[in-house]
Amino acid sequence: MIPHLITSSGDPVLELEQRILEAQPSIERWFRLEWMEHTPPFYSSVDLRNAGFKLAPVDTNLYPGGFNNLSPEMMPLAVQAAMAAIEKICPEAKNLLVIPENHTRNTFYLENVHTLMRIFRQAGLNVRLGSLDETVTEPMHLKLPSGGELVVEPLIRNKLRLGLKDFDPCTILLNNDLSGGIPPILQGLHEQYLLPPLHAGWAVRRKSKHFHAYDDVAKKFAKLIGVDPWMLNPYFAQCGKVNFHERHGEDCLAEAVDSVLAKVRKKYKEYGIQEKPFVIVKADAGTYGMGVMTVRDPSEVKDLNRKTRNKMSVVKEGMEVSEVLIQEGVPSVERLQEAVCEPVVYMMDRYVVGGFYRVHADRGPDENLNAPGMHFVPLAFEEQFNVTHPEAAPGTNGPNRFYMYGVIARLAMVAASYELERTDPETELG
Amino acid sequence: MIPHLITSSGDPVLELEQRILEAQPSIERWFRLEWMEHTPPFYSSVDLRNAGFKLAPVDTNLYPGGFNNLSPEMMPLAVQAAMAAIEKICPEAKNLLVIPENHTRNTFYLENVHTLMRIFRQAGLNVRLGSLDETVTEPMHLKLPSGGELVVEPLIRNKLRLGLKDFDPCTILLNNDLSGGIPPILQGLHEQYLLPPLHAGWAVRRKSKHFHAYDDVAKKFAKLIGVDPWMLNPYFAQCGKVNFHERHGEDCLAEAVDSVLAKVRKKYKEYGIQEKPFVIVKADAGTYGMGVMTVRDPSEVKDLNRKTRNKMSVVKEGMEVSEVLIQEGVPSVERLQEAVCEPVVYMMDRYVVGGFYRVHADRGPDENLNAPGMHFVPLAFEEQFNVTHPEAAPGTNGPNRFYMYGVIARLAMVAASYELERTDPETELG
Repeated sequence: MIPHLITSSGDPVLELEQRILEAQPSIERWFRLEWMEHTPPFYSSVDLRNAGFKLAPVDTNLYPGGFNNLSPEMMPLAVQAAMAAIEKICPEAKNLLVIPENHTRNTFYLENVHTLMRIFRQAGLNVRLGSLDETVTEPMHLKLPSGGELVVEPLIRNKLRLGLKDFDPCTILLNNDLSGGIPPILQGLHEQYLLPPLHAGWAVRRKSKHFHAYDDVAKKFAKLIGVDPWMLNPYFAQCGKVNFHERHGEDCLAEAVDSVLAKVRKKYKEYGIQEKPFVIVKADAGTYGMGVMTVRDPSEVKDLNRKTRNKMSVVKEGMEVSEVLIQEGVPSVERLQEAVCEPVVYMMDRYVVGGFYRVHADRGPDENLNAPGMHFVPLAFEEQFNVTHPEAAPGTNGPNRFYMYGVIARLAMVAASYELERTDPETELG
Repeated sequence: MIPHLITSSGDPVLELEQRILEAQPSIERWFRLEWMEHTPPFYSSVDLRNAGFKLAPVDTNLYPGGFNNLSPEMMPLAVQAAMAAIEKICPEAKNLLVIPENHTRNTFYLENVHTLMRIFRQAGLNVRLGSLDETVTEPMHLKLPSGGELVVEPLIRNKLRLGLKDFDPCTILLNNDLSGGIPPILQGLHEQYLLPPLHAGWAVRRKSKHFHAYDDVAKKFAKLIGVDPWMLNPYFAQCGKVNFHERHGEDCLAEAVDSVLAKVRKKYKEYGIQEKPFVIVKADAGTYGMGVMTVRDPSEVKDLNRKTRNKMSVVKEGMEVSEVLIQEGVPSVERLQEAVCEPVVYMMDRYVVGGFYRVHADRGPDENLNAPGMHFVPLAFEEQFNVTHPEAAPGTNGPNRFYMYGVIARLAMVAASYELERTDPETELG
């Protein structure tokens, strides 16, 4: 199942694939050295866009859902990576408390939580679920479509520690992105490991900080393998004060769109690319694919109709959009049965553990695919990420392609690690 | 492909399987704690014997061959484990020198070396081969049946470092068990990592030291999960001065056989086992399944014919047997198409990366299967080691069985770690 890839053999992405394969030992060493200096996020998923002429991360999720979309063959890798992660953080750990999102009616999400629990159990932890929802005062039993059930329990907080009834965890894993703000119950937990740290949540996190860090990573990495950093990095700009409802900040937005489009146009010219440039406008703190818009001309952001303005104004849990990211759009050339798709890569600790294609039959190659109507196609086993076939011709080999995805996704993970260091409130104070 | 297992539901091995599954989180935590105190061997393979009523390691190899017998699906796990191992030992490493056995005509062995090289390349190292054979003075090109070739190069030693022409490795990995003694060219390499350490080679290593260490491990582990340590540990005894040619030491041998058989008989009685006890007599420093004999009665070791005495006298590379191990025989109840088989489990760093069945159609359940005529059946993907199905009934589920194999094999790896600590000449001097 190698998705159809529209490229001809002179295309830069094939050059990128070839450079990456040739440099495999130095790339892996480079990652080793990065991880000596920086701590990888506990887990992450990265959305990639493959334009044929460039391959770039467009979103890095530090509270990955969708583990249930990985193929069962990925489980052993995920378990092994989880073992490595636990060993480093808290080898004496017996108990892991997972705090999921409050979507107790989204059975896809519940299956994700179930898969995560399974991974950590297999890695040797007692795993239980605690809810941030204050209306959960008794253990709540949630049936799963695959059979079995989840039990979500009320959290119990004392001065220093967070746990459940008869359950004192060493580590607390958030699978809740804190879009609604940082709840007091999670604050001041200095005795326990809280992962990811609170400043990774959308209450604090900004995509622009991530992509600033990614600029640095892409520059270093591109130098290592001898390519133009643009081949793996989308341009972006940001606007700090946008209010779509009140039509504030439209000028800033139009200017930013214009500037990003101009830069992209220049690169397209340099590489002889015939596509029409576009940008993606999205909430700097947004998530779930909400508040995302494709823009091909600066004038478009000045004439937003009420519907679009409403859509852009509100993201998850009612946050008002005010900071906006304007990101170079990377058209997707990947297709599964004619539908546009994009790879999503899952990582745990420093390891790529699996991935799938997000597919959307009703969307164009220049649109956000993370939207109702999407579905997921797990990568088959032969498409594992870490075993390459350097002798195969560029663009012809699934594992080589997936290795390349894994490399670019790990670059985004390195960027997330820089980002979390730079935004760590404790470091800032020190 | 779950091999046929002759057990009925009241059997102790099923109890063992159930105990192991129930205790999975505490078992994994126990391993984590062991690896906090002890360093796992870089790689290892363990031969297991499953008697239905007990499951035990009978041989632990610290220079594993046979990586080519693992199924291709295991590669990603092996690569990930190799990454973890390298990261801990020498994260800045660029170059790995592998020193293989001198069997340049054994194409099975060459395929093993090829697979190992592939694993380490994928993990991000430049890998080259150096030969201990002093007749290798020019790079030697060896064709592989699977296509491709190996290049074995002459070693270059200066005062402090070992390498090849234009190749200065950070780490030297031995895949040569040093049966012929420790070559001077490997001595005094204090600037480079030499793995496994020289005292792991058969020039120094003794099986009896390994099984003494395993006694300690099995006792601790059996207490953890609440079973009789005998269920996972074969009795053994040793004789220090045996010369089969000159018929010295036969009394010691007969006495040891008698004492082990008596202990086994007692256990068989305790558990109502109807089998006839036997022991395996083997060279304490032997390898490759040479010099191995099944004995059912002490009298048998007193009337050895010339052929058997010759067989027992000489093991690999002409070493004379003088120290002998007398190990409780564990009859194998595992069958693949009527042929007797035994699982072999491969580990890298602390992780189980794969395994296969060693199958021998012409051998009985109480015989050594590591002998000409054996063949190997890789474990299929569904038989991965680290993902269990706790809800399945004991004895009915492949993954659960293989998890159990992986646990017992890792116990032998912990024992190897104790053994190498105890026999480390530098610690002894200190």
